[in-house]
Amino acid sequence: MEEVKLFGAWPSPYGYRVIWALELKVHKKIPVLVHNGKPIAESSVILEYIDETWPQNPLLSEDPHERALARFWTKFIDEKGLPFATFFMADGEEHEKSAKEVKDLLNILEEQALGEKKFFGGDEIGLADLALGFIASSFGVIEQLVGVKVLHANDFPRLCNWINNFKENPAIKQNLLNHDQMFVYYKQKKEMLIASRTT
Amino acid sequence: MEEVKLFGAWPSPYGYRVIWALELKVHKKIPVLVHNGKPIAESSVILEYIDETWPQNPLLSEDPHERALARFWTKFIDEKGLPFATFFMADGEEHEKSAKEVKDLLNILEEQALGEKKFFGGDEIGLADLALGFIASSFGVIEQLVGVKVLHANDFPRLCNWINNFKENPAIKQNLLNHDQMFVYYKQKKEMLIASRTT
Repeated sequence: MEEVKLFGAWPSPYGYRVIWALELKVHKKIPVLVHNGKPIAESSVILEYIDETWPQNPLLSEDPHERALARFWTKFIDEKGLPFATFFMADGEEHEKSAKEVKDLLNILEEQALGEKKFFGGDEIGLADLALGFIASSFGVIEQLVGVKVLHANDFPRLCNWINNFKENPAIKQNLLNHDQMFVYYKQKKEMLIASRTT
Repeated sequence: MEEVKLFGAWPSPYGYRVIWALELKVHKKIPVLVHNGKPIAESSVILEYIDETWPQNPLLSEDPHERALARFWTKFIDEKGLPFATFFMADGEEHEKSAKEVKDLLNILEEQALGEKKFFGGDEIGLADLALGFIASSFGVIEQLVGVKVLHANDFPRLCNWINNFKENPAIKQNLLNHDQMFVYYKQKKEMLIASRTT
């Protein structure tokens, strides 16, 4: 009997990566993963662990160069993704600058990472799709909360297609909060973060 | 015939990780890696690629939990290693604060990452050892340049043992600059960075 536990408060974008990966591979719902008593931290590390432990629905290609690309984009969003957080917290005059920075990031993802492929890894959802999945799951709600629309289908046709394809996958679909739950969650989170800044 | 090229200016600590890994596994001396015409960026991504492409002298254990730990510490130093850069650039009153932060990091590595093992990955040099290798190769020179000694053998006996073991490995030993070359390199680098700050 295998035991798989995932610890994490109300799931963060990083936590969701792992939930989705587990659902794709082991159909378990549960960011510290404990597998047979051994804990593992860091969502991108957990994703690699999941992929190595359960071979079905591989998250990484067998081709080493494709694997390197998937890891590159996962690392890219982990390390360069700050503008998304800044945009989320932006108020008043900060909007314009942070919207521009998010747009620049989305452009890189649209042109260089995704290109003409269905998913970032090719025909199926892989490591980079899970790492970038918060754009599909949460970014629309955040735009609405901030009151600024960045991800227009005219500007980012490939990313918008990808979002639809990603959310259509049953493992993802069953693990998405509904719009209202998300809106309330992000609204409260933003208020809490603003309050903690000013006290 | 395999072609392996490594692009990188004067090798940075990140570039060295890759040089060492290639030397351990393919005895090639050459941070963009180009293998058979395909480029790969980011030293930690390159390390995974190298490990998957050449099976000899594995950099990662076969055990998924051990692999997760090695990736965790590699990510840890990539993301939390800033105090080392701050310490390098510190002048005057900044010394004390940055030395304290470096000490805290070294303590975590000594106690939690290394523990009683010879190398971070166990009995042989692995992914985390290469990621942390700049501590073995360069930190002594940086302490000398800054004029502050942090890594005392009394305070960090395990790390100091690890440094000796790491530098003893022939693949590493043949790819270490001598002390004077390093001193001149870091001195010039610091001067250039300070000049670029103030102009």
